Amino acid sequence: MPPDAKLDRERLAALYGEVRAASVRIAAPLRTEDCVVQTMPDVSPAKWHLAHTSWFFETFVLKNAPGYAPLDARYEWLFNSYYNGVGAQFPRAQRGTLSRPGVEEVLAYRRHVDAAMQRWLREAPSEVVAPLLEVALVGLNHEEQHQELMVTDLKHVLCTNPLEPVYRSDLRTAAAIADGAPVTPATLQFAEVEGGVFEIGHAGGGFAFDNEGPRHRVLIEGCSLARRLTTCGEYLEFIADGGYRRPELWLSDGWDVVRREGWSAPLYWKEQGGAWSLMTLGGLRALRRDEPVCHVSYYEADAFATWAGARLPLEAEWESAAGGEPIAGNLLEHDALHPLPAAAGESRWAQLVGDVWEWTASAYLPYPGYRAWSGVLGEYNGKFMANQMVLRGGSCATPRRHVRLSYRNFFGPSARWQMTGIRLAR
Amino acid sequence: MPPDAKLDRERLAALYGEVRAASVRIAAPLRTEDCVVQTMPDVSPAKWHLAHTSWFFETFVLKNAPGYAPLDARYEWLFNSYYNGVGAQFPRAQRGTLSRPGVEEVLAYRRHVDAAMQRWLREAPSEVVAPLLEVALVGLNHEEQHQELMVTDLKHVLCTNPLEPVYRSDLRTAAAIADGAPVTPATLQFAEVEGGVFEIGHAGGGFAFDNEGPRHRVLIEGCSLARRLTTCGEYLEFIADGGYRRPELWLSDGWDVVRREGWSAPLYWKEQGGAWSLMTLGGLRALRRDEPVCHVSYYEADAFATWAGARLPLEAEWESAAGGEPIAGNLLEHDALHPLPAAAGESRWAQLVGDVWEWTASAYLPYPGYRAWSGVLGEYNGKFMANQMVLRGGSCATPRRHVRLSYRNFFGPSARWQMTGIRLAR
Amino acid sequence: MPPDAKLDRERLAALYGEVRAASVRIAAPLRTEDCVVQTMPDVSPAKWHLAHTSWFFETFVLKNAPGYAPLDARYEWLFNSYYNGVGAQFPRAQRGTLSRPGVEEVLAYRRHVDAAMQRWLREAPSEVVAPLLEVALVGLNHEEQHQELMVTDLKHVLCTNPLEPVYRSDLRTAAAIADGAPVTPATLQFAEVEGGVFEIGHAGGGFAFDNEGPRHRVLIEGCSLARRLTTCGEYLEFIADGGYRRPELWLSDGWDVVRREGWSAPLYWKEQGGAWSLMTLGGLRALRRDEPVCHVSYYEADAFATWAGARLPLEAEWESAAGGEPIAGNLLEHDALHPLPAAAGESRWAQLVGDVWEWTASAYLPYPGYRAWSGVLGEYNGKFMANQMVLRGGSCATPRRHVRLSYRNFFGPSARWQMTGIRLAR
Amino acid sequence: MPPDAKLDRERLAALYGEVRAASVRIAAPLRTEDCVVQTMPDVSPAKWHLAHTSWFFETFVLKNAPGYAPLDARYEWLFNSYYNGVGAQFPRAQRGTLSRPGVEEVLAYRRHVDAAMQRWLREAPSEVVAPLLEVALVGLNHEEQHQELMVTDLKHVLCTNPLEPVYRSDLRTAAAIADGAPVTPATLQFAEVEGGVFEIGHAGGGFAFDNEGPRHRVLIEGCSLARRLTTCGEYLEFIADGGYRRPELWLSDGWDVVRREGWSAPLYWKEQGGAWSLMTLGGLRALRRDEPVCHVSYYEADAFATWAGARLPLEAEWESAAGGEPIAGNLLEHDALHPLPAAAGESRWAQLVGDVWEWTASAYLPYPGYRAWSGVLGEYNGKFMANQMVLRGGSCATPRRHVRLSYRNFFGPSARWQMTGIRLAR
Repeated sequence: MPPDAKLDRERLAALYGEVRAASVRIAAPLRTEDCVVQTMPDVSPAKWHLAHTSWFFETFVLKNAPGYAPLDARYEWLFNSYYNGVGAQFPRAQRGTLSRPGVEEVLAYRRHVDAAMQRWLREAPSEVVAPLLEVALVGLNHEEQHQELMVTDLKHVLCTNPLEPVYRSDLRTAAAIADGAPVTPATLQFAEVEGGVFEIGHAGGGFAFDNEGPRHRVLIEGCSLARRLTTCGEYLEFIADGGYRRPELWLSDGWDVVRREGWSAPLYWKEQGGAWSLMTLGGLRALRRDEPVCHVSYYEADAFATWAGARLPLEAEWESAAGGEPIAGNLLEHDALHPLPAAAGESRWAQLVGDVWEWTASAYLPYPGYRAWSGVLGEYNGKFMANQMVLRGGSCATPRRHVRLSYRNFFGPSARWQMTGIRLAR
Repeated sequence: MPPDAKLDRERLAALYGEVRAASVRIAAPLRTEDCVVQTMPDVSPAKWHLAHTSWFFETFVLKNAPGYAPLDARYEWLFNSYYNGVGAQFPRAQRGTLSRPGVEEVLAYRRHVDAAMQRWLREAPSEVVAPLLEVALVGLNHEEQHQELMVTDLKHVLCTNPLEPVYRSDLRTAAAIADGAPVTPATLQFAEVEGGVFEIGHAGGGFAFDNEGPRHRVLIEGCSLARRLTTCGEYLEFIADGGYRRPELWLSDGWDVVRREGWSAPLYWKEQGGAWSLMTLGGLRALRRDEPVCHVSYYEADAFATWAGARLPLEAEWESAAGGEPIAGNLLEHDALHPLPAAAGESRWAQLVGDVWEWTASAYLPYPGYRAWSGVLGEYNGKFMANQMVLRGGSCATPRRHVRLSYRNFFGPSARWQMTGIRLAR
Repeated sequence: MPPDAKLDRERLAALYGEVRAASVRIAAPLRTEDCVVQTMPDVSPAKWHLAHTSWFFETFVLKNAPGYAPLDARYEWLFNSYYNGVGAQFPRAQRGTLSRPGVEEVLAYRRHVDAAMQRWLREAPSEVVAPLLEVALVGLNHEEQHQELMVTDLKHVLCTNPLEPVYRSDLRTAAAIADGAPVTPATLQFAEVEGGVFEIGHAGGGFAFDNEGPRHRVLIEGCSLARRLTTCGEYLEFIADGGYRRPELWLSDGWDVVRREGWSAPLYWKEQGGAWSLMTLGGLRALRRDEPVCHVSYYEADAFATWAGARLPLEAEWESAAGGEPIAGNLLEHDALHPLPAAAGESRWAQLVGDVWEWTASAYLPYPGYRAWSGVLGEYNGKFMANQMVLRGGSCATPRRHVRLSYRNFFGPSARWQMTGIRLAR
Repeated sequence: MPPDAKLDRERLAALYGEVRAASVRIAAPLRTEDCVVQTMPDVSPAKWHLAHTSWFFETFVLKNAPGYAPLDARYEWLFNSYYNGVGAQFPRAQRGTLSRPGVEEVLAYRRHVDAAMQRWLREAPSEVVAPLLEVALVGLNHEEQHQELMVTDLKHVLCTNPLEPVYRSDLRTAAAIADGAPVTPATLQFAEVEGGVFEIGHAGGGFAFDNEGPRHRVLIEGCSLARRLTTCGEYLEFIADGGYRRPELWLSDGWDVVRREGWSAPLYWKEQGGAWSLMTLGGLRALRRDEPVCHVSYYEADAFATWAGARLPLEAEWESAAGGEPIAGNLLEHDALHPLPAAAGESRWAQLVGDVWEWTASAYLPYPGYRAWSGVLGEYNGKFMANQMVLRGGSCATPRRHVRLSYRNFFGPSARWQMTGIRLAR
């Protein structure tokens, strides 16, 4: 459990209100129908996210609160995602078959939990609250993770729909930033990253997931990283050069997926008569050559890097290079919900935080001395440490409060419905 | 195309209004969420049914009407069920992944089509309308088929939901009829069906599907049919006698399904502590021993018959026995939406029309001299004449206007989400 | 159990020797490797056939013989095909994963069973033998069925092998018969079949399977049947006319298979530069336009008939038309192992018996009053009466002793590795 | 391409003869049938191994040799394993469906290739041979890899056969070594591994695969490794403590496999009445508590380590600890073909080389600065660097000449048909 001794109950209660409200805001522009469907097993319906995040507080906090009565005892099973320690789970791939509870019932469930949480946070005796304050804090970070997942999942629901619906037409667009003289047309530049023994991992002093620690020494050799993300223009050259038809560029498992799924471009790209467009949360629009490529899998990122005579960075290289960067950029609150072209500037790195999660060449494995959280929350991160790759830096769908330079996101190598992109290394 | 020379345009327009309104009425008690999900590949979302039935009129009638403009050209592909002659189809198993068009848009689509149909029926020049009047009539019969499917599909959506939601709490119940002294507790009686050469098939004088003709001679040997449907009580004895555990009672393909799916009772039955209950459109309630068993597959019907030392009737036996029966009984308009115990009475057959579709031992194959309708509508029935069994008699979800004694319904032998039951023969 | 009171033990013992030897002769030209592999789940390795047919005698006869000791008790499970009444079965689709028992061990198993059978037939007390004599006779008919299956299964093993191996180079070829002035080039002629009420089914007086009875009356309308089988030349016209690309010609389930499997010609046909050749048990050779088309599924036969403006015959039509035909033709003993062009002749029907099994339009269902054999052998035929179509007439791989005009063969509608072909009706 | 300048053509020719003969020796005790079957997609038939290793020399060496004529041009496609640069491949999962070429033909293919290789090595002009000498050396190392695979694949063929056949009854057994007072009953001891910056990877001076380089610096923290392998006795305690029923011990993907496959013990273990036995290449025998556990997957190794309060070593820890160990132990030439109990001794590590491949906690990823071999052989190792874990140390089926302390073996985390075991770390 993360050490965070200074937590003030009042402040936590206020934060609780803010974070929980943000989830509902994300779902607000959706129609009821959009909150229900599941377009592939990886995607969860929006109403499931709204329910499951409430389930988290109910299960891990409120069930220990004296006098709490669950709204519906069946939700314990229905909205358990993967906690075997809690009990059996409704099958993940069938979440989209459940019309009930409906959106209104789920919102009522949220209100039920929220009222109980506020009461508990503000009124329960100290000896009851204290042992669970940090679990409540985990719950808020958990909620923020699901805010990002809700964005990427509803994007899949809308952007795979043949009617090409618009989520919001008032999102901040690339056109706005383009006036600021993007550096992107310029040649890709690399900056040196010094070699040596460094420390990586969470240094303490705030919340972090268990998988970010312990802080430990790593040895990296000197290398250089691209100063900005790979652009759609660069990726188009890869496609034009037969990128999706040349097995020698691909990992073997990746090539199998390319053939089985018939991949010929990133997810949500559409080609007609030689012109490329993109489905975005603002609807279908022409692709811009200066915007970062997004919705590529690890396999595609790796094949692109191979084609470009480069490679993907290790997570230790990335974290070492990122040291001291401010947590700012095109994050959820920027309200673009899409990566933006790099703005001109003097800074060493562009787009390091926000825009897209950057695939690294590091498998998602425990840090030396890793200890999972104790109890049932030990299932949160540790049990997924196989068959996944680490991504770094947050995306345009990550809440600002949520991201850290030590943050280790992870997905399987064929996943591409997340906001994922490429920073080259060599 | 069915001969129906007496069709009057005004009368057809009025009928059109009635039939189309009935479909919307079926969906009315549903929440938006219930109209969207697809709980298995065989099930279509309610909003798909509402859209597809409109598509039928648009595609086969209105596209030939001068000046008609489709509401959305993409619907031609999106709501095509299986007509290769019309073009490609959106994949059936993915209908539940489409949140758009939403329920409101689908209803707007219906209104668009309805207005155009009414205009066309009432105002278009005779030489334009006449060649398509019968297609319009097919469209209404098609709509009625989908009314029944909408009922059985929404039943699957609601009755497989772990929250056990109620569709309508004001349905006519078995309790109402029970006062009428059901005959069901009595021993099962059989009535003789005379052998000889008879004619079966549609005799003309009204609408019929192409597969009901031509009327032709059949030779049947004398046999006897059960005077009523098999009851849940009788089926419980089959279960208690190890019915689902004894391979010798089952067809080989059926036994494979039993093991693969883990069947141990009809669909929607639940057992707890030795007591059986049923999920119905009125919610969960205790099973009644005197009500007809429903939601059994052909494999289960056949295994039950074998266990009972009997067999299922041939469709020719059924139609011969049914000759002269009135089209009345527990049909859609009776508003029970569930089969009811047999009422006491003097009549030779109970529950012959309505309640449940009765599995026959006849494979769904063309009658001698069968000719499919000409043109694209030739795909309506003929191409399904393989791997299916014939069912007879209509069910509690069949519109009264729709059923006929010559009506040949057909489903694959493992289907059990329809209102299907058993009448024994020997 | 079939009535066959005249059975003489000595004669049966002699027949046993002949039939059993014939199975071994079929396998003799194979290399050891050919006896082991399973090229698809429907195919069984040759050594499995040799073992299973021995298992049949061991299980149903010898286990009841005093003093019989099984060679290996594990064979009871290993070589049980589908008899739930005997016990569990080794999974069918994995028969090709078993290297042991090897071919030599299987042959030793045969010798063990054969010696015991001969002893039992010739020496056991009458009261022991009598009740099982008919089961032994079933065993010989079972063995003959497996002789045909062994031929078609080894054909699949060899003819799907990219090295195009030859089973035997001394088979009787079409070239031999071609000197006899084939009638095949001539226009296809039809002969009338009278309508009326007839009896079909086994009339007694010899062995028959339970599914051939009881003999019963059928009503057929007058029709006409093609005087010979459909030729490859005619089938080539179907292909050339887009037969495999036109969904309107196909049953819906058939069209699904065409697309899923990529069918574009019968099994074992190969096209190169516009020239067609065939893989046969004699190796690869050019296709002859005058030879019967073979290795088509029911779906293909039905689509061809639709294209030709005809249909497939009902089994009652076929049996009625065949009445009085001699059991002679291109059967197993003719040693062609491939259908041959129709020989010129005066007879009403060509190729009615032998050459290819003829798909009928009749589903495989029980005859009125059908009673399966009693006991475990009741699983022999009855439990397969779903999802299959009847075929008539025997093939070039059927032992002459085995076929009857009342014989009902059956396969699923997508099966095409059997020697199956087409006779048109209208 | 590996630097190996001292290669002497004569010495290579002699080595070629030795290595090639060893492959044939492995297959010699098999019956023909055993060489043909494929018991799961990962397994290849023995005759495929014998052919594919010949294909390697033909494709990468002989096709460049003037005047070489392939024995059969179709083998290029038939025996290509995964080299897209060479061309299309016969589907891997169907290797067991090919009865031809038979064993004798494959051996003839070997002789054809061997004769040509010997001619080429001994007689071809230097300018022809020199550029390909190292490819030939790769071919021999490739052959050695397939010798191990042939052992593990034929083990799967025999040990999953219900008749429990014996490969060889003259193998060196555990009983032999047991006289030498095994240390295994003693408590598990750990030895310290010093922390610091070390070099790992191939240091040059002999053949190595591309994935073993470049040699590079790693930082490891001090840790301790078990002095011997985990025993069956220790693993039995894990099973007895509910190891296969407690999800909290397992990686999430691993737990999915446990449930899907029904794992409850290592592969080839059998339990009857509480007593455990093992299928080995010498047949079925009682399990010994002092022998190393073998045939566990990474998931099982990881779950066991979690249960034991330990972890698996990193490959850098392993290689650092192993520095200076001699290449000796229970390797292929020891002729046990099964891991043996640790012999008593003074040495720091027991069983480090040989016995079983030891799962590490390191994902199989490129070393810093990794360069795949140039040309088509670049597909040899690099394209598999995803979704696999590294194993170290060689096994009882690895040729002594083949293993190195820098050797990186790799398999997917659910694979368990290799000789794989556990050395704990903490």
